[in-house]
Amino acid sequence: MMRNFKITVSYDGSRYNGWQVQKNQDATIQGKLMAILKKMQGCDVDVIGSGRTDAGVHAIAQVANFHINTDKSADEILAYINMYLPDDIAVTGIEEVDEKFHARFSCVSKTYRYRIHTSKIPNVFERKYVYDFHDKALSAKLMIQAARHLVGEHDFKAFCGNPHFKKSSVRTITSVEINESASEIVIDFTGDGFLQNMVRIMAGTLIEVGLGNIPAVSITKIIESRDRQQAGFTAPPQGLALLCVKY
Amino acid sequence: MMRNFKITVSYDGSRYNGWQVQKNQDATIQGKLMAILKKMQGCDVDVIGSGRTDAGVHAIAQVANFHINTDKSADEILAYINMYLPDDIAVTGIEEVDEKFHARFSCVSKTYRYRIHTSKIPNVFERKYVYDFHDKALSAKLMIQAARHLVGEHDFKAFCGNPHFKKSSVRTITSVEINESASEIVIDFTGDGFLQNMVRIMAGTLIEVGLGNIPAVSITKIIESRDRQQAGFTAPPQGLALLCVKY
Repeated sequence: MMRNFKITVSYDGSRYNGWQVQKNQDATIQGKLMAILKKMQGCDVDVIGSGRTDAGVHAIAQVANFHINTDKSADEILAYINMYLPDDIAVTGIEEVDEKFHARFSCVSKTYRYRIHTSKIPNVFERKYVYDFHDKALSAKLMIQAARHLVGEHDFKAFCGNPHFKKSSVRTITSVEINESASEIVIDFTGDGFLQNMVRIMAGTLIEVGLGNIPAVSITKIIESRDRQQAGFTAPPQGLALLCVKY
Repeated sequence: MMRNFKITVSYDGSRYNGWQVQKNQDATIQGKLMAILKKMQGCDVDVIGSGRTDAGVHAIAQVANFHINTDKSADEILAYINMYLPDDIAVTGIEEVDEKFHARFSCVSKTYRYRIHTSKIPNVFERKYVYDFHDKALSAKLMIQAARHLVGEHDFKAFCGNPHFKKSSVRTITSVEINESASEIVIDFTGDGFLQNMVRIMAGTLIEVGLGNIPAVSITKIIESRDRQQAGFTAPPQGLALLCVKY
């Protein structure tokens, strides 16, 4: 009998070409999972992620699902997969779900976290998980002012990294939370979906606002322009992590 | 004029043969610092650490000092060193101190932290900083009972990894604190000094107590035996970090 399993996956994306299977499936998270499930089942198993993450981007809790014909318990499947995964990827949760559950289509919202390390003093233990930006004075206050204008249902074409994207680029951002500590500015973006590179372009744009290069009030004009050139740079992948996916 | 600088150093020890300069100075933390200070000063500069850390052991806050003849401010020296250090080593603090300050001899106490990851679910982001021990049921309660017997002034010869050690092996452990969370057992050892591998052997011995292999009350007998064979195994280096050094 075919059963549908939902898994939560955590990964350090440093070594990978992102979530999605490429020609070299060894260097993607989805590819690693599919190879292990193929070994377990003796046939190809499609692993459906909630969405792609770019090369170098991390996940605290990516969600995926797959249909397999097995007598194994959920715990046995989790143990099997983790036994074969490299130590920078781990399945942190598993549950059997309704056959209709689909990690991408059933998704209601996602939260991505972007971490900017602002202290002159490096944190050696977090170095692979933050964007080191210690050489500039960044104003979190300006970034918070700008972030308000991102919230809502908008056409985010100006924040899309794929110039050939033809489908609707309308998305709803439900919140952008910015917290500042002594050594970091952390931005949590929550929305119903994100375009390619969208979180990194929003983060880069907020950084340019924080530096005074872009006025906070210009965000609305940038959105309305639907022009990628008007938005800021694409912040580097290592500062970004998929924090959670809600259903 | 010769000035004495005290620095705090943080490092991910994974890639290094420990603190202390060896033949291959490139692969030690002390060697990295000495090479940079030599570049800055044009002559050899001795960097005195509070003590050695083993190959693969980390430091949140190792302390060292060095004497140099310079007009540079402390902040300029810190920036210079950090500019040339690899990204897994960082100087996190610097201050000019009295000429008599000596990182090793002036030290009053040190705290080492040993982290045991006990959950079946790996933490991919902490994987290099914990000892993964998820395949056994470990009793923190038994470990806490045993730890009490380590506290005090004792001859810790049984916990010394160097069989040829000829000096006094008497040390004072002022506290052993054990905290358990859902995924980790964390042991903080504080004392006036530690013998070679001593923290790792104490951690390994406490793990064997936690597994029921050694009764908690046997710790006193093990200490009294002064016999390395009576104590437990040497826990692996990646779980260990030098947390702080007091003066």
